[in-house]
Amino acid sequence: MKKTALIMAGGKGERFWPKSRVSLPKQFLSLTDDGKTMIQLTVERIRPLVELEDIYIATNSLYRKLVTEQLPGLPEENILCEPVGRNTAPCIGLGAVHINKKYDDAVMIVLPSDHLIKNNEVFAETLEQAAKTAEQGENLVTIGITPNYPETGYGYIHYDKEKMLGSANAVKQFVEKPDLELAKKYLASGEYLWNSGMFVWKVSTILNNFEKLMPDIYEGLMTIKASIGTSEYKNVLEDTFGAMRSESVDYGIMENAENIYSIPGDFGWDDVGSWLAVGRIKANDDNSNVVSGNVVSVETKNCVIEAQDKLIAAVGLDGIIIVDTQDATLVCDKEHAGQIKQVLAALREEGKTEYL
Amino acid sequence: MKKTALIMAGGKGERFWPKSRVSLPKQFLSLTDDGKTMIQLTVERIRPLVELEDIYIATNSLYRKLVTEQLPGLPEENILCEPVGRNTAPCIGLGAVHINKKYDDAVMIVLPSDHLIKNNEVFAETLEQAAKTAEQGENLVTIGITPNYPETGYGYIHYDKEKMLGSANAVKQFVEKPDLELAKKYLASGEYLWNSGMFVWKVSTILNNFEKLMPDIYEGLMTIKASIGTSEYKNVLEDTFGAMRSESVDYGIMENAENIYSIPGDFGWDDVGSWLAVGRIKANDDNSNVVSGNVVSVETKNCVIEAQDKLIAAVGLDGIIIVDTQDATLVCDKEHAGQIKQVLAALREEGKTEYL
Repeated sequence: MKKTALIMAGGKGERFWPKSRVSLPKQFLSLTDDGKTMIQLTVERIRPLVELEDIYIATNSLYRKLVTEQLPGLPEENILCEPVGRNTAPCIGLGAVHINKKYDDAVMIVLPSDHLIKNNEVFAETLEQAAKTAEQGENLVTIGITPNYPETGYGYIHYDKEKMLGSANAVKQFVEKPDLELAKKYLASGEYLWNSGMFVWKVSTILNNFEKLMPDIYEGLMTIKASIGTSEYKNVLEDTFGAMRSESVDYGIMENAENIYSIPGDFGWDDVGSWLAVGRIKANDDNSNVVSGNVVSVETKNCVIEAQDKLIAAVGLDGIIIVDTQDATLVCDKEHAGQIKQVLAALREEGKTEYL
Repeated sequence: MKKTALIMAGGKGERFWPKSRVSLPKQFLSLTDDGKTMIQLTVERIRPLVELEDIYIATNSLYRKLVTEQLPGLPEENILCEPVGRNTAPCIGLGAVHINKKYDDAVMIVLPSDHLIKNNEVFAETLEQAAKTAEQGENLVTIGITPNYPETGYGYIHYDKEKMLGSANAVKQFVEKPDLELAKKYLASGEYLWNSGMFVWKVSTILNNFEKLMPDIYEGLMTIKASIGTSEYKNVLEDTFGAMRSESVDYGIMENAENIYSIPGDFGWDDVGSWLAVGRIKANDDNSNVVSGNVVSVETKNCVIEAQDKLIAAVGLDGIIIVDTQDATLVCDKEHAGQIKQVLAALREEGKTEYL
């Protein structure tokens, strides 16, 4: 069966401020040493399985230009602009009806646009297996990541070690982000995977599930589908998509559907959730610093310093993130990286929107 | 007797990098909330005692323009440009021969240009008393600061509580910077003062002491004196001053001379020795931060943040100094403020002299 992909690229990436901005979110930035942007790496990674003309990008109309610039050769009509963000369920539904209109049925691979994967070959093999499982009936397949520490920032997948379909395991339950104690239990049990937000299914399967579990959204999707290719499309999309409720596919479908399978992925996954991740991903110096740009450091360790032309002098620092841009500089303790969003809230409150 | 002053303003102020630069050292910066520069405050502070035409500024020729800009009305000939830095003894000797040439004898007040004093009235009263003591014979008077904690970064003055001359105490000994244990003993004894580098004496007294204790330097000073007012002055100064050895007045004279007196000063003195001092001097916010310029801070305390127009966002920091300038940004842990000099050394080594 034909393989297609939907890459979700509508995120704001606030946790990478000040390098990411409303006008240039994380998926359009290069955070790796190779200079390629996150979305470019995502497309490159699935090209062995999916033709460029069968890759769809769901994003915000703000980012249409960035997508066309960063992904030359991608058909213009494959850029699906959500009029407003409505979380993953409506986004995936929109992709599904476009693919459904074009091919009737096909395998649909759903991927975030801002994760990193070290081993592309194993990743492609994993997706191949997931596609096979998805084709064998009405199965919803999720790619789970084998956890190597008790992360409390991800949802987990509780899978059945005994009940298998090919190389996929039946899923017992999707569970919310655990506290540390629970995360340790999950890790020790060997029966849990991280929920990576990567899914594989047939278009017909996911649409059937929308019809059954989220009939209101399904109805809207059908209205949108009818308008695809007509002059009414844009208006219909705006009205109908805009009227949908905001819901995640995990909560709206995966937690309630049947025939859920997971394939454990072991391909060096990182969701690059914050500046902390840069310390994991990029090459460290002798003092465990990740440094780029014009930097002088003295007795400084465990820091992430992203300078540009302007000189950054770091003295006696430990575990500090410094990110310099043209108009703003972030200096943040690693343990407080989650509070960068509070800076953005303060900037909004003070009307300093030029920095957002 | 006529009162004159020599303000020593040749320092490089490296500890205030990146705001201070080779081309704009600390004494020409404003570090207080009133916007006045350190040297302007120094002059303002002694004007109740000394006419502007009797204030001499010893500095480097690099800074002649800064002195004329910041001290309008000061006679051009009162700017004494040292061709090279030779520490305080030759510098004070140069001031002394200029005053000696102009007035034969006079009271000479010697002051650093980069210290802060909170209570100018008490300061002026203290100097008045010192001048009286200096006039009563061949006395060398130093202004000692009553210590309030066991500082290890200053030299101390051991004074005789019993032996007094007016309000001045005879000095038993000048002692070098102590270790912490010794500093605690000094503090507990009540017999020690911080050596602030402020002196009062008659010109005749200090020149007699040069003749007796540093005859080589005295000889050079006399050569320079002979050339003052002639077309030869600049050349003579360059040759003769340049040939002098580098020596502090503490080591060269005060530690060996007789008739040394000290007046305990209690006027809110701060030598503003590093960025740490800014945390003491400027108004703190509720989280003990000293913040200026375009700053957003989240869960940040005990920091000194000097921003300009560019936004500095501080998140989760404790005890960090951030100083932003046009071409360089310093991020320094307070406990490592002494290592800023290593940044300058690294910049020199890497040939990045534009930042010095």
